Amino acid sequence: MSSSLLRPSLLAIASRHAMSSPTKAALGRKHASPARRSFDVTVSAAASQNVDKKYVPGEPIANACVVVTGANRGIGLEFCKQILAKSPGNSVIASCRDPNAADDLVALQKEVGESRLAVVALDVADETSIASWAQGLGALEPVQAHGGSIDVVINNAGTTGTDGYSKWELEDMTADEMMHVYKINTVGPLLVTQQLVKRGLIGDPGSLNPVSLVGNVTSKVGSVDDNGSGKGYAYRASKAALNIVNKSMSIDLADRGIWCQLLHPGWVRTRMTEGRGLIDADESARGLIRCVMFRETRLFPLGYGG
Amino acid sequence: MSSSLLRPSLLAIASRHAMSSPTKAALGRKHASPARRSFDVTVSAAASQNVDKKYVPGEPIANACVVVTGANRGIGLEFCKQILAKSPGNSVIASCRDPNAADDLVALQKEVGESRLAVVALDVADETSIASWAQGLGALEPVQAHGGSIDVVINNAGTTGTDGYSKWELEDMTADEMMHVYKINTVGPLLVTQQLVKRGLIGDPGSLNPVSLVGNVTSKVGSVDDNGSGKGYAYRASKAALNIVNKSMSIDLADRGIWCQLLHPGWVRTRMTEGRGLIDADESARGLIRCVMFRETRLFPLGYGG
Repeated sequence: MSSSLLRPSLLAIASRHAMSSPTKAALGRKHASPARRSFDVTVSAAASQNVDKKYVPGEPIANACVVVTGANRGIGLEFCKQILAKSPGNSVIASCRDPNAADDLVALQKEVGESRLAVVALDVADETSIASWAQGLGALEPVQAHGGSIDVVINNAGTTGTDGYSKWELEDMTADEMMHVYKINTVGPLLVTQQLVKRGLIGDPGSLNPVSLVGNVTSKVGSVDDNGSGKGYAYRASKAALNIVNKSMSIDLADRGIWCQLLHPGWVRTRMTEGRGLIDADESARGLIRCVMFRETRLFPLGYGG
Repeated sequence: MSSSLLRPSLLAIASRHAMSSPTKAALGRKHASPARRSFDVTVSAAASQNVDKKYVPGEPIANACVVVTGANRGIGLEFCKQILAKSPGNSVIASCRDPNAADDLVALQKEVGESRLAVVALDVADETSIASWAQGLGALEPVQAHGGSIDVVINNAGTTGTDGYSKWELEDMTADEMMHVYKINTVGPLLVTQQLVKRGLIGDPGSLNPVSLVGNVTSKVGSVDDNGSGKGYAYRASKAALNIVNKSMSIDLADRGIWCQLLHPGWVRTRMTEGRGLIDADESARGLIRCVMFRETRLFPLGYGG
């Protein structure tokens, strides 16, 4: 495994595309619809009045409302802790399958208060769960505090497989296993983002400037070019697929001011990696939070060193 | 769309890996097991006695037993026709969901005879179908005629979506659609290849020389780097995933003498593309058949020009 695998890095930044003429014409009309076929979005009055919002994608995460999926442990939990610690204006929607069992999140909530940290049920493998989750977000205190909109989404929830690395070899692979990992690692982030866009919770139709950031936690293991050790079919395929989903989203959502970004967490010692790895979750999250800062990542285009 | 998209091309050739010492030690012992954890394969007596087999991956397809999936129409059908026409020693196992409706294949069979062309039911979206299909292959006349083994597998069956391009946009994507396309385009080729290996129908454990070729029909639309137009989530994701599945297989199956190769058919006018495209299926198949010839593709590393 090459050393570049070991540290968090920015795999690809959002594609910035030249605006088309109809979009250019929309300059000044904050919520003008782009000319192309588009989501049917009603942006809430609160969001449109949110003139004090200070977070800008590419800048350090401050005064931002941040959604984190898979937030109950590992890198997700560290994201929540560090984002909350980073700026008193940051609030977090920590999402996980079972909030009742999310002891660490509940402890964190006691520390920072419910107005800064909401803990919400979300199963990214379940389309219905994603829809209800998205529907409830607008009413949450941390979202309301930011004018009813979300600034940063970290699609972090993921799995290596139903039973860890037990089906890493070609001979052990099954259709169910391939589908299960794909549903969580690829389809989940797509539908989460789609729902947030559909409900006008992220982005700003016709915006010429980035206003929201979607970070998709991928893995260099999902790189075709970087694959030297084979195996890992379900996981590798799901992350390679997520990479192109991110790329398409970065193009399709650019004229809503949404930046989509791939984030490689490094090889991190968590429950998911069965304790294997070379860095801890706190170091990984710290690196990734720096990676969403465009100014910093421009200095570290091939990976952040520590 | 760049012009390089329009012609068939070789996206990646099989990775050839330095053999480990235990494998080197197996030189001369034709069916010695490699030292690594491996498929439990019983190679049939017929296959091991197949000393007259002339096809070598990388050479023109001659005296070869070829499996083609999705063979009833489009590029798959053209593969069958052209491979049969190429050498009187070639035989084909044409596989498709409903052989009873495969009129063109039946007509072709009348022309060349059942000993050269078998038409067999296979639904690559159904794990059980894949297993029964693989189980029945060894007894087929065209396979028996080649010593009970298969030389070339073209994983061609694929779909753009349940209803063509109707869910090409992010807003229209659903979990079901993502999963459906993934199951056919990514999981299918993986399980087809896995089953053929498990049953000892392709490859030769411990072989130092390539003896079988697996060609996975992908699309440049599955390239993250080449994605300039966004959208196409289900299809793009499935092909990006297939690309890394192929890469892992090319590594994992190298010491069984199996070459795995990605094939981009170009933008082809077929029912799948709803008649859109720039070349016809016969031109595409002709190009792809040349692409599996290593000597020729070395001359056209970035695409075959016609």
